[in-house]
Amino acid sequence: MQVEQDLLAKNDRIAAVNRARLDATHTLAVNLMSSPGSGKTTLLCRTLELLKGQTPLAVVEGDQQTSFDADRIRATGVPAHQVNTGAVCHLDASMLLGSFELQAPPEGGILFIENVGNLVCPAGFDLGEHKKVVVVSVTEGEDKPLKYPYMFAKADLVLVNKVDLLPHLDFDLERLMGYLAQIRPEATVLKVSARSGEGMESWLAWLGEARSAIA
Amino acid sequence: MQVEQDLLAKNDRIAAVNRARLDATHTLAVNLMSSPGSGKTTLLCRTLELLKGQTPLAVVEGDQQTSFDADRIRATGVPAHQVNTGAVCHLDASMLLGSFELQAPPEGGILFIENVGNLVCPAGFDLGEHKKVVVVSVTEGEDKPLKYPYMFAKADLVLVNKVDLLPHLDFDLERLMGYLAQIRPEATVLKVSARSGEGMESWLAWLGEARSAIA
Repeated sequence: MQVEQDLLAKNDRIAAVNRARLDATHTLAVNLMSSPGSGKTTLLCRTLELLKGQTPLAVVEGDQQTSFDADRIRATGVPAHQVNTGAVCHLDASMLLGSFELQAPPEGGILFIENVGNLVCPAGFDLGEHKKVVVVSVTEGEDKPLKYPYMFAKADLVLVNKVDLLPHLDFDLERLMGYLAQIRPEATVLKVSARSGEGMESWLAWLGEARSAIA
Repeated sequence: MQVEQDLLAKNDRIAAVNRARLDATHTLAVNLMSSPGSGKTTLLCRTLELLKGQTPLAVVEGDQQTSFDADRIRATGVPAHQVNTGAVCHLDASMLLGSFELQAPPEGGILFIENVGNLVCPAGFDLGEHKKVVVVSVTEGEDKPLKYPYMFAKADLVLVNKVDLLPHLDFDLERLMGYLAQIRPEATVLKVSARSGEGMESWLAWLGEARSAIA
């Protein structure tokens, strides 16, 4: 459909502007995407608690409605800019560009962008970020990579969250890993629990490497 | 945006055709919507097992990719038509109309339509169904009704799924109920577990009442 192609081409041009801006301030930008309820915000809050004081940080929060998530982020002491997308099902590059006018990317630090909870639409829109991270929780079923392939096919990192719940679930982690390998063999996969803290060190190490690569 | 309004107006006209067709065969059509991983398919399979033999049944399965869910439905013995939406994030009325050419609505029975796992986009598209059912699982966080208000604002019934996991979660069911009451006080809310069977009788009773209303 022509309308859609024009829209994506425009988005890509704005994404390139964002990327240049982020590179100029040596800011690593990480786009966090997942289903609603995968635990992205809890994981992000825990991450901010561990990084703050050592690394300049900021967050852009995308939600259809409410500023609940931005409020949770601000409670950690890290600045957050809320984008309410209304009827729109994803963040786009112009929304991120607009956020820079109100909240500058943290120089030499990390900008976390928490996308709208949606495994379909955000996959199509480059924001100019350096890394795409998909969070999938073990309560969601093993088949998500095959059912939502566009999302997983672009992931640099997949965080398998809520692993503390595994003893209470009929969840086959090996099956999930096999499906991920089919769709995106290049992605790094880390098991984490924002609640128990399991895997947080590996996730922070991954962020550290990504920062080094753009410094 | 004009394009979007034209699209929705066209969709509504096709939805009206679908509704007339379903009414003519006294088929109750139920549109099941949720996040990815809320347990819709497992809940639906269990529902079909309980209803089959008593009620004519069929399923239309919407997924971005794969026929995993349709295969799970067919394993219950109930016919299923798979719609793969590709890059599209929701079912629309024309997709349902197309399905009728390949799988007739079950006369005097129930047609379950399992929408694409997505709490944003399916809310905008009337399919011509009689009832909209939103499934939300207790692993997803209490704030979903306020964060995805368009979806919850149209729900006739909210099924709160996976309640067997409540002892292992930090989940405040009362808080969820309060938010639901703010967004959609008219909706019926039922707690269910597809795994333990809790609440399935109430859900079947709700379906029975909905069938009586259109017979």
